[in-house]
Amino acid sequence: MMMGATFTRHREIAWRGGQTRSTSRLIAEETAIALTYNGSTHAVMMGTPGDLEDFGIGFSLTEAIVEHESEIRSIELIPNELGVEVRMWLDGDRAAFLAARRRAISGPVGCGLCGIESLEQARRAPSRVAGSGIVFHARDLLSAMQALSPLQILNQQTRSVHAAAFWHPRTGFGPVREDVGRHNALDKLAGAIVREQKSARDGAVLLTSRVSVEMVQKAAMIGAPVIVAVSAPTALAIQTAEEAGITLLAVARDDGYGVFTHPRRVLLPDEAAPRAGC
Amino acid sequence: MMMGATFTRHREIAWRGGQTRSTSRLIAEETAIALTYNGSTHAVMMGTPGDLEDFGIGFSLTEAIVEHESEIRSIELIPNELGVEVRMWLDGDRAAFLAARRRAISGPVGCGLCGIESLEQARRAPSRVAGSGIVFHARDLLSAMQALSPLQILNQQTRSVHAAAFWHPRTGFGPVREDVGRHNALDKLAGAIVREQKSARDGAVLLTSRVSVEMVQKAAMIGAPVIVAVSAPTALAIQTAEEAGITLLAVARDDGYGVFTHPRRVLLPDEAAPRAGC
Repeated sequence: MMMGATFTRHREIAWRGGQTRSTSRLIAEETAIALTYNGSTHAVMMGTPGDLEDFGIGFSLTEAIVEHESEIRSIELIPNELGVEVRMWLDGDRAAFLAARRRAISGPVGCGLCGIESLEQARRAPSRVAGSGIVFHARDLLSAMQALSPLQILNQQTRSVHAAAFWHPRTGFGPVREDVGRHNALDKLAGAIVREQKSARDGAVLLTSRVSVEMVQKAAMIGAPVIVAVSAPTALAIQTAEEAGITLLAVARDDGYGVFTHPRRVLLPDEAAPRAGC
Repeated sequence: MMMGATFTRHREIAWRGGQTRSTSRLIAEETAIALTYNGSTHAVMMGTPGDLEDFGIGFSLTEAIVEHESEIRSIELIPNELGVEVRMWLDGDRAAFLAARRRAISGPVGCGLCGIESLEQARRAPSRVAGSGIVFHARDLLSAMQALSPLQILNQQTRSVHAAAFWHPRTGFGPVREDVGRHNALDKLAGAIVREQKSARDGAVLLTSRVSVEMVQKAAMIGAPVIVAVSAPTALAIQTAEEAGITLLAVARDDGYGVFTHPRRVLLPDEAAPRAGC
């Protein structure tokens, strides 16, 4: 696999408007990505083979493998014919902690736990986001969502990948990351933010996707106080954002969006109805 | 958790067209689902809490836990405050086989395998679909996709869940299943097809989502000869459909779709270009 090739041209028989023609289309690549720590695989995921250092660091943070990126002593990408290994080495204390955690719970896949124990593992309590007292103008967040599309480089070519972006009210866009998987796009963003020595606590995370609970859990892990998403949240995502103290805006369209939790961080003009209790 | 409640009404502050108002919205439920076999958890996934018997049976088939649904001796849904356990008991031979497989490979999460071994696990070769010699008229598949929307009961309410449906050229729609996760929707469909004693080999699988490699692998496991999807495939999905002998149609819009692999099963009118080599 050539590293960095995130799309390729593929042949297509297009049948449109009753006409058939041979053509071609730019198609997003997808590859197996193994995340390994100190020589052992922690997870294998299918994803877009770009920004994989960001992915490794971001996943390590959002899945609580490490508390700080400095605990990752080294990260190396090892491509082979089956995919890519993102090979990470943790410092001594953190490696010992991970090994102990593995002995205690070997993970939800084929792990030998009973159903209830496994469900307890899956439903981890979200981190509580402190926020930095930051407040956003409603229209600024809408403008940011509208400005995201031209920054989705891979999606401009393939129309088939999700983006996660960071936006700050004063400095504008930080990193924008893309992946065929929405969780991966957010993990890549998490990694890019810390590698650029920014803090997610000062801005908003913009998502082109739906908001399921894991998206909120990951955003909480990096301390993001605001999420804005194109599509709808799930009920559990709303509940988790409520618990985590995250302001969740979703169903973002050209005309506006819905505010589902913690509206205190959004200055809504022309407020016709009381906010109390929402 | 109330079983069967797949959506609930949530409060929303809607900011649209510069106006703010307190309103509410129907939101899709999402819950943790633990799949257990003979007392041990095999996987935990987030999904829509409906059609979970279909999900358990379908997942068991598409992930090669069983070769035939009759190997699942019983299936029971055990809701609790954390989610739902789909509790399955396998017959003796199959249970012994699964236990042996677990001892050999404990799965890609925290499994202790090195990166390459884990990547080999992830990139399983697809089943080769025999097909039944069935051929579809191009327009029939387009009409089927157009007829799917009103059958997506949960999505009509929430506009936020995927559907997987089965369609047969003579008998029309078979089961339609929905989930916040596209893999889960397809697993539920796989289970529903066998529970209705239909064969996926005689029809087409319709998907409202993108086509990543795992969607093709799962379709191959149930012998589906044709996939039609609203969104684009990944490069690896195209390659896998090619290897599996599956006809992959995607980017289905009101005016038509693209044919990416094995066009022999689709009768395209007004063919202007030769098919050779595609």
